[in-house]
Amino acid sequence: MAEKIQIGIVGYGNLGRGVAAAVERTPDMELTAVFTRRNPAELSGPDGVAVRHVSEADAYRDRIDVMILCGGSATDLPEQGPRFARLFNTVDSFDTHAKIPEYFEQVDAAAKAAGRVAVISTGWDPGLFSLNRLIMEAVLPDGKEYTFWGKGVSQGHSDAIRRLEGVKNAVQYTIPVEEAIERIRAGETPELSTREKHIRECFVVPHEGADLARIERDIVTMPHYFADYHTIVHFIDEEELRAKHSAMPHGGFVIRSGVTGRGTRQIVEFSLKLGSNPEFTASVLTAYARAAHRLHKEGATGAKTVFDIAPSYLSLRSPEELRKELL
Amino acid sequence: MAEKIQIGIVGYGNLGRGVAAAVERTPDMELTAVFTRRNPAELSGPDGVAVRHVSEADAYRDRIDVMILCGGSATDLPEQGPRFARLFNTVDSFDTHAKIPEYFEQVDAAAKAAGRVAVISTGWDPGLFSLNRLIMEAVLPDGKEYTFWGKGVSQGHSDAIRRLEGVKNAVQYTIPVEEAIERIRAGETPELSTREKHIRECFVVPHEGADLARIERDIVTMPHYFADYHTIVHFIDEEELRAKHSAMPHGGFVIRSGVTGRGTRQIVEFSLKLGSNPEFTASVLTAYARAAHRLHKEGATGAKTVFDIAPSYLSLRSPEELRKELL
Repeated sequence: MAEKIQIGIVGYGNLGRGVAAAVERTPDMELTAVFTRRNPAELSGPDGVAVRHVSEADAYRDRIDVMILCGGSATDLPEQGPRFARLFNTVDSFDTHAKIPEYFEQVDAAAKAAGRVAVISTGWDPGLFSLNRLIMEAVLPDGKEYTFWGKGVSQGHSDAIRRLEGVKNAVQYTIPVEEAIERIRAGETPELSTREKHIRECFVVPHEGADLARIERDIVTMPHYFADYHTIVHFIDEEELRAKHSAMPHGGFVIRSGVTGRGTRQIVEFSLKLGSNPEFTASVLTAYARAAHRLHKEGATGAKTVFDIAPSYLSLRSPEELRKELL
Repeated sequence: MAEKIQIGIVGYGNLGRGVAAAVERTPDMELTAVFTRRNPAELSGPDGVAVRHVSEADAYRDRIDVMILCGGSATDLPEQGPRFARLFNTVDSFDTHAKIPEYFEQVDAAAKAAGRVAVISTGWDPGLFSLNRLIMEAVLPDGKEYTFWGKGVSQGHSDAIRRLEGVKNAVQYTIPVEEAIERIRAGETPELSTREKHIRECFVVPHEGADLARIERDIVTMPHYFADYHTIVHFIDEEELRAKHSAMPHGGFVIRSGVTGRGTRQIVEFSLKLGSNPEFTASVLTAYARAAHRLHKEGATGAKTVFDIAPSYLSLRSPEELRKELL
């Protein structure tokens, strides 16, 4: 095997740890260093891997082939995406939908100026779900597409509950309405309201003596987050929350129901059932790091998305082997 | 919109008719001509479209952007694939697995010599299933992949029954074992024998006075085709066969069950439920015809598979629109 692809990780939260674990299972890659904004001495990184302050990253310019950016989309990536694309090939999971065009432009300019490749907005949604939406639409132009998420924890919704008065902690699950999915799988193409697609189930730890009825009302009437959904609220204690609701499962479905010929029904579905959302997202980022490295070696530059990358770039296997074994 | 992509069809059976129907639903394409080995005067083609003998195809060299080859893999494509790639950009559904490497080489040489692009072995399997196998394996290297087919008609198995003495007509359905799929979806990774994955159900029209017990025995003990399966045989009359078994539904599942981190289970599934196998396959070929045309305009040459083509080439939408609407 050729020299291993040297990987760097920026940000060592759940996603960063997932990338470290994914690289370990990947025979053609090696983790060179983890970069953090915290005090590196206080961070326990993966065994035998250097942990450095993010300000030291520039010195690794010639030693890291691809930097995987594991920060959040709200504040980390808008700054880190363009900054690191000026020095490294990068991969990130930027997922603020409305800002993707603007983010693409900034990262693209930085990566082009530096002669680097930056794969943005990958993971599963955006990422593998987006890829499937594109393929399904191209194959079945006359059709209707549905995306369902869950069952899984939504951080944004959990945070919104935690900000309420009287709430100590909370976890919110987004749950797809099974009945709606079954209708689509059976060949119907219903117009579904927000309420008909997902349920929101909340596990809330109240402060002692808090007004539970008021908390519940505040949740179920909260605009944007809960008001348009069937929302279920359970009050539990901190111990139960830790014991039963600290895993990070997720998943979802992209389904396209289309017609061909004289009205023949054709249904395509892509689904995920994930034991850990951050570990799976990290696994996708890691596969796209291989693509970024190869594209760079071929002389490509600029920002890329899942739409722009031929699948073979993701695989360890040679084109001959792919045709023989997987086609 | 720019000028429409001019499409030609070689072979006007179920698949060719499916392509004609797919092109009609596709705003950026136009069907220029259908080519047949039969007498063109006797073939009723799509409304307003020229039907020509296949020997006249060369004259269309400058008027057809992509020729979609709709012949069979056994005898048509091994001859037509290289022949048409010398004159046109082509797309085909060559699916004789063992011969794909050899077919690729021949078509690749022809297409490269002519400066053309030839997309080979597309459809759903090989095709979209292959694409998903690659992506799933790249994302979850530690895992086990399963492909199930059906419920759908297998032409090869139906033909094998039809060749038996005393059999007038027959249709064979390949049916995935639901219980096996449920075990995998539940997180198990069983080693499944042939018998545990698919059932074969046969609807057989016997000649009058035929020995039914002998026909049934001949079917269920037939090596390669039926001996390794749980095979169910029904005897019916010609009328019932026509009424209930003349549609061409199909479908299937690609499922990968993998682990990340310290053994977290992650399950990815791609599935199809098709009202018409040839119409869906035709829709995939048509989407890849768009890719072949664009790749050719960019100067690419040679044989390509689904692995080699970035998804954006399949879509009518611009890269900006794709990022804004589908990412």
